Amino acid sequence: MGKAPGTVTYMGQREGAKSILSVINYDENTLDIHEVVDLGQIDFHQKSEFTSWIDVVGLSDELFIAELGKLTQINPLVLEDIVNTQQRPKIDEYENYIFGVFKMLYLNENQEIVSEHLAMVLMESSVIVFQELQDDVFDGLRERIKSKSGRIRTRGADYLFFALLDAVVDNYFVILEHINHRIEMLEDEVYDNPTNDVAHRIQELKKEVLKLRRQIAPVKELVGRLLDSESSLITKDTKLFLRDVQDHCIEINESLQIYREMSMSLMEMYMSNMSNKMNEVMKVLTIMASIFIPLTFIAGVYGMNFDHMPELHSEHGYPIVWGVMIAMFIGMLIYFKRKKWL
Amino acid sequence: MGKAPGTVTYMGQREGAKSILSVINYDENTLDIHEVVDLGQIDFHQKSEFTSWIDVVGLSDELFIAELGKLTQINPLVLEDIVNTQQRPKIDEYENYIFGVFKMLYLNENQEIVSEHLAMVLMESSVIVFQELQDDVFDGLRERIKSKSGRIRTRGADYLFFALLDAVVDNYFVILEHINHRIEMLEDEVYDNPTNDVAHRIQELKKEVLKLRRQIAPVKELVGRLLDSESSLITKDTKLFLRDVQDHCIEINESLQIYREMSMSLMEMYMSNMSNKMNEVMKVLTIMASIFIPLTFIAGVYGMNFDHMPELHSEHGYPIVWGVMIAMFIGMLIYFKRKKWL
Amino acid sequence: MGKAPGTVTYMGQREGAKSILSVINYDENTLDIHEVVDLGQIDFHQKSEFTSWIDVVGLSDELFIAELGKLTQINPLVLEDIVNTQQRPKIDEYENYIFGVFKMLYLNENQEIVSEHLAMVLMESSVIVFQELQDDVFDGLRERIKSKSGRIRTRGADYLFFALLDAVVDNYFVILEHINHRIEMLEDEVYDNPTNDVAHRIQELKKEVLKLRRQIAPVKELVGRLLDSESSLITKDTKLFLRDVQDHCIEINESLQIYREMSMSLMEMYMSNMSNKMNEVMKVLTIMASIFIPLTFIAGVYGMNFDHMPELHSEHGYPIVWGVMIAMFIGMLIYFKRKKWL
Amino acid sequence: MGKAPGTVTYMGQREGAKSILSVINYDENTLDIHEVVDLGQIDFHQKSEFTSWIDVVGLSDELFIAELGKLTQINPLVLEDIVNTQQRPKIDEYENYIFGVFKMLYLNENQEIVSEHLAMVLMESSVIVFQELQDDVFDGLRERIKSKSGRIRTRGADYLFFALLDAVVDNYFVILEHINHRIEMLEDEVYDNPTNDVAHRIQELKKEVLKLRRQIAPVKELVGRLLDSESSLITKDTKLFLRDVQDHCIEINESLQIYREMSMSLMEMYMSNMSNKMNEVMKVLTIMASIFIPLTFIAGVYGMNFDHMPELHSEHGYPIVWGVMIAMFIGMLIYFKRKKWL
Amino acid sequence: MGKAPGTVTYMGQREGAKSILSVINYDENTLDIHEVVDLGQIDFHQKSEFTSWIDVVGLSDELFIAELGKLTQINPLVLEDIVNTQQRPKIDEYENYIFGVFKMLYLNENQEIVSEHLAMVLMESSVIVFQELQDDVFDGLRERIKSKSGRIRTRGADYLFFALLDAVVDNYFVILEHINHRIEMLEDEVYDNPTNDVAHRIQELKKEVLKLRRQIAPVKELVGRLLDSESSLITKDTKLFLRDVQDHCIEINESLQIYREMSMSLMEMYMSNMSNKMNEVMKVLTIMASIFIPLTFIAGVYGMNFDHMPELHSEHGYPIVWGVMIAMFIGMLIYFKRKKWL
Repeated sequence: MGKAPGTVTYMGQREGAKSILSVINYDENTLDIHEVVDLGQIDFHQKSEFTSWIDVVGLSDELFIAELGKLTQINPLVLEDIVNTQQRPKIDEYENYIFGVFKMLYLNENQEIVSEHLAMVLMESSVIVFQELQDDVFDGLRERIKSKSGRIRTRGADYLFFALLDAVVDNYFVILEHINHRIEMLEDEVYDNPTNDVAHRIQELKKEVLKLRRQIAPVKELVGRLLDSESSLITKDTKLFLRDVQDHCIEINESLQIYREMSMSLMEMYMSNMSNKMNEVMKVLTIMASIFIPLTFIAGVYGMNFDHMPELHSEHGYPIVWGVMIAMFIGMLIYFKRKKWL
Repeated sequence: MGKAPGTVTYMGQREGAKSILSVINYDENTLDIHEVVDLGQIDFHQKSEFTSWIDVVGLSDELFIAELGKLTQINPLVLEDIVNTQQRPKIDEYENYIFGVFKMLYLNENQEIVSEHLAMVLMESSVIVFQELQDDVFDGLRERIKSKSGRIRTRGADYLFFALLDAVVDNYFVILEHINHRIEMLEDEVYDNPTNDVAHRIQELKKEVLKLRRQIAPVKELVGRLLDSESSLITKDTKLFLRDVQDHCIEINESLQIYREMSMSLMEMYMSNMSNKMNEVMKVLTIMASIFIPLTFIAGVYGMNFDHMPELHSEHGYPIVWGVMIAMFIGMLIYFKRKKWL
Repeated sequence: MGKAPGTVTYMGQREGAKSILSVINYDENTLDIHEVVDLGQIDFHQKSEFTSWIDVVGLSDELFIAELGKLTQINPLVLEDIVNTQQRPKIDEYENYIFGVFKMLYLNENQEIVSEHLAMVLMESSVIVFQELQDDVFDGLRERIKSKSGRIRTRGADYLFFALLDAVVDNYFVILEHINHRIEMLEDEVYDNPTNDVAHRIQELKKEVLKLRRQIAPVKELVGRLLDSESSLITKDTKLFLRDVQDHCIEINESLQIYREMSMSLMEMYMSNMSNKMNEVMKVLTIMASIFIPLTFIAGVYGMNFDHMPELHSEHGYPIVWGVMIAMFIGMLIYFKRKKWL
Repeated sequence: MGKAPGTVTYMGQREGAKSILSVINYDENTLDIHEVVDLGQIDFHQKSEFTSWIDVVGLSDELFIAELGKLTQINPLVLEDIVNTQQRPKIDEYENYIFGVFKMLYLNENQEIVSEHLAMVLMESSVIVFQELQDDVFDGLRERIKSKSGRIRTRGADYLFFALLDAVVDNYFVILEHINHRIEMLEDEVYDNPTNDVAHRIQELKKEVLKLRRQIAPVKELVGRLLDSESSLITKDTKLFLRDVQDHCIEINESLQIYREMSMSLMEMYMSNMSNKMNEVMKVLTIMASIFIPLTFIAGVYGMNFDHMPELHSEHGYPIVWGVMIAMFIGMLIYFKRKKWL
Repeated sequence: MGKAPGTVTYMGQREGAKSILSVINYDENTLDIHEVVDLGQIDFHQKSEFTSWIDVVGLSDELFIAELGKLTQINPLVLEDIVNTQQRPKIDEYENYIFGVFKMLYLNENQEIVSEHLAMVLMESSVIVFQELQDDVFDGLRERIKSKSGRIRTRGADYLFFALLDAVVDNYFVILEHINHRIEMLEDEVYDNPTNDVAHRIQELKKEVLKLRRQIAPVKELVGRLLDSESSLITKDTKLFLRDVQDHCIEINESLQIYREMSMSLMEMYMSNMSNKMNEVMKVLTIMASIFIPLTFIAGVYGMNFDHMPELHSEHGYPIVWGVMIAMFIGMLIYFKRKKWL
């Protein structure tokens, strides 16, 4: 805030790490993997017969990013978005490249949802991928490139761009599955044991679904914009595949909508269970009090010390009082039985 | 997940079964039914004067599907959708065919709603239908073809495609009827006996309506897209019929919307009944306690053992106390009567 | 269900009655009323200088409808909609006629809302009206034709079509008035005496408003479509009047929306009244118990039988205890008064 | 209802009053005010160099309105809307005039919102204003005309039409202010003293906001339509001012939306306060009962009349029992203190 | 209200202060700061090679504003909006200038959100900024101009306009952060100590979010309109930056939407916690009453004074009664333990 627009400023929480650059060059027959490279080794402008997947890990190295920006002639506003890890999903088309920001979502070892900033730049024959951490959701894709499985090796950079996006979106389904599982667990708990903690976790879930919607929902529209784009960087063939990604995005958005309604239902169910519990508590109290308070009164009457209480001196007084009290007891039981409180 | 896009991967839960192919060829005068056929026996490309209904049951036989894909030159992405039993409804137009995925919904013997994946490919003179199980909602249509009733025998493949879709959509009404019936039953139960289980079933219903909406709602828009399509595969005449299907879809969507609101009303009604019950319980308690606690106090007073309590020795003490107590009792009854608690 | 599309199948509950046909022919100077006519007597195709209002009562006579369809060359899909009494409102334009389905709504003698299926076909110089029962909302219109009041006698079939539709829509206002009246009554009852039955009737009302919306809401859009239509059957002059009908429809939809929100408010008000009642009940209980339980305790203390209880033998013990108890009683009263519970 | 469309029928509740006509003619230099005029004195068709504000008060004089309609050649459908005091806001363009219906809203002496029907017809050089009562919101405007302040005297009839509409919309802000004030008062009352009457008034408020929305919300769109209109009656210059009116309408609609949400929040707050009160009541009851019921039990034990109760004969029995009871009393107080119930 | 449209009337609450004018002229090499200037010193129409930031502080000096309006030939309607501090955000394009109203939002020293009216006029080579108070959010921008950091010194007035708007929007994020912080604090309090005051503050928060939405939400659309504008005042280059501002606006709107849902969740959580507390209170009451009322009854029975009560004279009567009472006590404890109430 307060900085000039277009200033390359890292927004994340992993300051000080150096950016690491790796490159995979491939065509149908060749495969070249360079684990760690220097910026100077890559010629971004020479038209290549290879497709290059250039991977930048670590976004806090502002000098590196600025240097890369100079070499690739990427607009400073784009560089700013690349390192702004709070940037919401977006796709912008420029003359020579298409730039996109997405959120990679995956579960960490504690089964918590991790959201990682991902920026991608599609150029003529290369895709530059910017990510904060080494972890990503692209291992399957790397495997496919190495093993030549699928179409990936026979197609160009636009297909690589699509394949990366597809991997990101595919992983959203894992997250949805996780959310679904949590909803089901909460459903059981609401039914069995609706403690205050369950209510709290339902609200947590609602918040998480809201956050996911924010990170995922824009993607559908962005892909739609790519489909309508007239950029020469994306072939008609690849658009066919992008349409598939769009389908997935629609499905994901629908699921999130449904999860939202289900979490609201959960809360409703919780409140209704609470009411039920309260009803039960009140019934116990009412039954106990309604039965024994009148009986106590009767006992109290014959505990009075008046000189002239003929009942006290009658021989059958005591058993008669017991009789009356038992009759009242049974009467109340029948009454509550009829009301279905017992 | 993690697979290359366009890979034909069965997503359902019925692995290992072989696909069975059957064919019905017909025109106005001829009818040819082949119960079980080999793939090789069908020539998908020869323009035929017959209309062919090609039925594939069983989607886990990936080799078979791939082979069929090769013969029909159906796009691998389409094949992927055909065997992806989780695919949401979609219609895609290609140059030589129109491809659609729908959900067949029917009630099983336990009156549970079953959702079955259905894929259809409309070609020049044939419709290929892909389904997971032998069960389907097309028996009436088969009968009509056999008995030459209606228009079906006099029209082409596009009409067959419509008729299949029409049968699917018609069956949605059966499901709606079932939902409606459940809502009415729940209404009665909420009124008569609002147990926790009823609340649970209302929430179940809400979830089911949400799920149905997801499976059914897209169909309306898809049919709309067919109506706007300029594909030569669908004649203007058939579009007239499709408009009817679209009308039905609109009606179904409206019904689902109404069912959703009604299930929310049910929950509201349930909560209001719970409140009512609680009120009733509390009234019983309050009446019993308010009447007998003061009376018990009076009895207690005259159970005290002070040496100097002149009332105790008065001859009329005891009957007077009884009189006071009865007066208080009657007073309370009148009070509660006035408050309409009795 | 399961029938071939375009099959003329009566869907209502009044099987077996014969259709009755009546005709009113009129122009500015002539008026010809035929109460009961045979189908054969009408020539549907001869261009007439008269405007004909052809009224068909009874839709279960499938033979009659089919015969009429043949004579008028109405599309079988339209015939299907004519006898399908569950058909939602629709307007379809064909080359030679415009077809519409609407719901006539009126109150029966028990002040219940009756919904009657109405189909109308506008042809060059006639309007064919299909209705299930003799009852309808067109008596005022018939009167106007007979008495030559208004414009009706000087205009053509399109104006008649409009006038019929206008009568249907005008009657919706009667229904709205009825709903409004019920809401006001329920408001009073919720305030005065919120029994469970009132909650039930609020829910009934909500359901009825939902159902009305479904039957009425589409009309607005349908009329809009007529206004945009380029059919030569509707003159520019009549469109001016149709715009008025559309205005009414907008107003009706807005009212229904407001009634919906008001019925939700009613339920809220009901719940808040229930809470209030509960609060009141609890206050009575709390006041009674809080006052008398401690007093009873004190009485209990001096009812104990210890040998050495000096207070019991003090001459002023008894009046002092009474004093303490009265002081406590007054103290509690003041306490509850301060809390505004009394 | 049941009347022929286009019949001029007064719909209000002030039957029998005669319509009164007054005219203000003005241009930059001249000002001519005629308090009461006869219809015959006005020439509606002669093109005038003056701008005329023709004011008709009283709409139940159907003969007068009909006569005026004949003289001005206003369409009968428009006349019908002019006298239909239930007509919702609308603007219709005709070849020679633009017709609008609006609701004047103002507060009466009891601070109740009064809604008055207002119809305006903009012609070449005059605006005819139809209102039910002498009261209106145009006094400021009249003053401006008389005192030559602002632009009004230098501009034509379209500016007058705008100025009238502007006065109507400006007064909506007064109403909003009033609503806002009521919301703030209710907020205080909900917080201080949430009686049933407050809930009732919140619901009243909600209803009133709904009604206002219905009367005000359409104006925004209507003005938008005027802005898009190509009628020669409205100059480009005046449209600049109309855009301002539209801005106000947007603001008003937003405010109404916010008031709606705030009244819903009020109800929520009310319910939460009710719950709080209930909690407080229950705590008092629970504390009193939990403390004194066990103590009473102990007193009861030593009130028993068994022959062999050694404690009774112990010299220290009585003080020990008191000690136990006081200890229990203090224990309970500490317990409730810890639970923060005290 | 009641004033003629286009009258310059100050609407704020800081009457009587004189307007203060300051000017910053700059190009890439030159920087000229004039702290306090007279209106006459500025030539608004001479095309300048410098970019001028003209700052007007204080809007209640109507004479000054009117004079400035005359010199700059700004439309009186615009002047009216400039001094109308209640004006909602708007952007209007005129031939020679673009006019915008926004709300500057910042936190004051009490951490309350302050909303300040801001009007800006973009002309050929200058931007006139109107603000009520000396305080603003532009210090960072002034610094950048002075220190030549960023692009600002190398670009024209349109970039200055963008930079000002960017500073305003950037500050919205500070406000969002503040809201977010308050939500988190309330979440904790709802969980720990749900007093009535917390409910009140949740409602306050909801109201504040509503108000913010009203002030912020329109900006997104306004910037969108600037992006579509064909005015020559805004270069294509600057539009690239405006697109960024629009992105921020979208993000802000989404956040506000989420905060709204979260504040509703807070209220739900509060209500559910209240229910929980009530349940707990009721359980304590029920347990205490259910255990001791029956025991007191038993004690009462043996406090009766009948002559013939054989138990009283049995030697083991007293210990047996104690045994029974302890057994009942333990029985009840087990019962409540099983119900998980303890």
